[in-house]
Amino acid sequence: MTECGNSSASAGTGSGGSFHSMWRELLPIGRHSGSHGYRRFAWTGADTECRAWFKEQAEARGLTYEVDRNGNQWAWLGDPAQGDAVVTGSHLDSVPDGGAFDGPLGVVSSFAALDELRSRRAEFAKPLALVNFGDEEGARFGLACVGSRLTAGQLTAEQAHLLTDGEGVSLPRAMEAAGHDPEGIGADPDRLARIGAFVELHVEQGRALDLSGDRVGIASAIWPHGRWRFDFRGEANHAGTTRLLDRRDPMLSYAETVLAARREAELAGAVATFGKIAVEPNGVNAIPSLVRGWLDSRAADQESLDQVVGGIEKAAGEYARAHGIDLDVVRESFTPVVEFDHALRDELARILGTTTDLKVPVLGTGAGHDAGILAGHIPTAMLFVRNPTGVSHSPAEFAAEDDCVAGVLALADVLEGLACR
Amino acid sequence: MTECGNSSASAGTGSGGSFHSMWRELLPIGRHSGSHGYRRFAWTGADTECRAWFKEQAEARGLTYEVDRNGNQWAWLGDPAQGDAVVTGSHLDSVPDGGAFDGPLGVVSSFAALDELRSRRAEFAKPLALVNFGDEEGARFGLACVGSRLTAGQLTAEQAHLLTDGEGVSLPRAMEAAGHDPEGIGADPDRLARIGAFVELHVEQGRALDLSGDRVGIASAIWPHGRWRFDFRGEANHAGTTRLLDRRDPMLSYAETVLAARREAELAGAVATFGKIAVEPNGVNAIPSLVRGWLDSRAADQESLDQVVGGIEKAAGEYARAHGIDLDVVRESFTPVVEFDHALRDELARILGTTTDLKVPVLGTGAGHDAGILAGHIPTAMLFVRNPTGVSHSPAEFAAEDDCVAGVLALADVLEGLACR
Repeated sequence: MTECGNSSASAGTGSGGSFHSMWRELLPIGRHSGSHGYRRFAWTGADTECRAWFKEQAEARGLTYEVDRNGNQWAWLGDPAQGDAVVTGSHLDSVPDGGAFDGPLGVVSSFAALDELRSRRAEFAKPLALVNFGDEEGARFGLACVGSRLTAGQLTAEQAHLLTDGEGVSLPRAMEAAGHDPEGIGADPDRLARIGAFVELHVEQGRALDLSGDRVGIASAIWPHGRWRFDFRGEANHAGTTRLLDRRDPMLSYAETVLAARREAELAGAVATFGKIAVEPNGVNAIPSLVRGWLDSRAADQESLDQVVGGIEKAAGEYARAHGIDLDVVRESFTPVVEFDHALRDELARILGTTTDLKVPVLGTGAGHDAGILAGHIPTAMLFVRNPTGVSHSPAEFAAEDDCVAGVLALADVLEGLACR
Repeated sequence: MTECGNSSASAGTGSGGSFHSMWRELLPIGRHSGSHGYRRFAWTGADTECRAWFKEQAEARGLTYEVDRNGNQWAWLGDPAQGDAVVTGSHLDSVPDGGAFDGPLGVVSSFAALDELRSRRAEFAKPLALVNFGDEEGARFGLACVGSRLTAGQLTAEQAHLLTDGEGVSLPRAMEAAGHDPEGIGADPDRLARIGAFVELHVEQGRALDLSGDRVGIASAIWPHGRWRFDFRGEANHAGTTRLLDRRDPMLSYAETVLAARREAELAGAVATFGKIAVEPNGVNAIPSLVRGWLDSRAADQESLDQVVGGIEKAAGEYARAHGIDLDVVRESFTPVVEFDHALRDELARILGTTTDLKVPVLGTGAGHDAGILAGHIPTAMLFVRNPTGVSHSPAEFAAEDDCVAGVLALADVLEGLACR
């Protein structure tokens, strides 16, 4: 049993006050003066500043600070060896020119929720840990959730050694340059075995809560999602002299496929996006020989996703045949549906149903998270905070102050309900 | 009056024989082992080899060789000062991974036609010159027909000094590095004043001759053509979490515009091509903030071109509005129709009508040429040789040996008709 007491960080400020002061401290770190977006890439200077901030917050609250073998930061209240720990947190790194909320909202809310529980003089029956997972966005090394994947054994040390950034710097060398010894990276089952529940609070990356008029939601599942590469191969030719009838122009089949993707996604209530393209020779006066488009598609369930991608592939094949184009479709990555632990999800709903007047809907999400990685290993849940723009991975990402505070209080209620009985 | 006589290069071989031996000599120069296409960029090593070949051919035939102030190579039979010269030739440089015929066919055919005229013991009443214009394709410095533009005063020395290649090397420095003094580049009106007619033979860059079943054709005009940049600006967002209804995805408007361009071109019997694209941020899981597409369009006359481009702009504007996209259209370049000299064109038709059994159709072209530049200054004409693939600017560009020889003979007839009366 741990007596929480008042820490100096939270004394007299309440969860709202400590949230705001922490938020203001983080805001300038890694913000680009031109784009106003964040560039907090793993193991860079901006990341190191964020990590220093996390350590300060932990120490200011008298928590036991540690960095695990994979570079994730932990702040413990109580003895980890006791087991059945309740863990909360998220990540502090960002996509290129990302927003302020994706990741940091969950970390700041974790500290603010602890402050709230201390102001309530809550008594903990279980160890509590706050965590900052390293390299969640994968902006630098191209793979998302590296810190949690390594810990869960979903990424081996051998595989991690092969990851390099755009300058050819390997992940281990980048860790070393930032002061973390990469020698011990790899699966950390003992650490996972001590965790009874992990709850990640995150800004919503869509408008479901805004549309339902709710401040906070509980995650049901992460939609199955994947990436497919569509290679349309035609024949390079002179754009000025080649008759339309003599052309094998792959841009036409690509364009038709982009529109088919939208139609199929609409039909299935899913999403499908062609956001990346590479064209050869990409000359103004040249009919392309190759148009390569990448499809990102996600749906609420596997059957819907199969229907969407199958429909797009079928349409693309028909368009390609009509234009004399050779089509290859390659699935480059795929993540099946992640169902969060039903018992924990129901427990969160029960807790929040008794502690708050808020309606707390349960909703799915199309984005990946560290919680999605850990869900395969330990009971895991997520809380979402309303984002009225629905925008994510952009400086326009937003959550109102009142909603952030509502998220902190909901997280405090959940931690109290899970750890303090 | 110049007695042609037999030169050693053509003795006993006839025009076909000299054509083939010259063709074989040129074939390996600047050919890329991977793509099998040509990379003969202006003022590079491959270009220098081609230029050395031209000089050898001129000297082997006892012609007066000179390089003009703009780096174009000339081989004279007779005294240039006499005036009213008949000039033929083309260029030896290539687009990236271009074919063997675009340019070199006209230069090789010029020498072979002279050999043919010497074997006929034709007597010249006017000076004759063979020319290799420098940097016709613009592959290195981004502007086509630099050699003829400079000579005609359509490109000033000041403008030429600003041209740089992908490595930042300026055109004058590149000339200097290849052994040409760039000090005197600029308009050369005295040279143009000495020319009575310029005839450029070129491989056809479409299938009109193949479809009509003719080996050789005469150019009527170069279609008006231009480049337009379409900027579709939307809102970057997460491809996994943003509802379709909340998106402002510029890729959709771009795709619709690509298909509209095809429809408008079909309606007008013109061509319209989106062959170059730039996307931001161009990430697989990101809805783009910007899709920038370049339209190349050409038509037989100005009215048709206006109709095509106007129709595409109108459609693009409607699609953009429907998707909440901001659209900017910028005309980046434009070349009005070039009508070749009617009297010279009719003279070529009359000559070939009497000297050959071939039907020689008159046809337009969508491609630019040095002949198109010079047409604004001196009487200019073009001959086309059949290209059964219709392919151009690609290793698949092709002309059959028989058709090449027919082209040489037609050019010889034209030169004899123009210069030997």
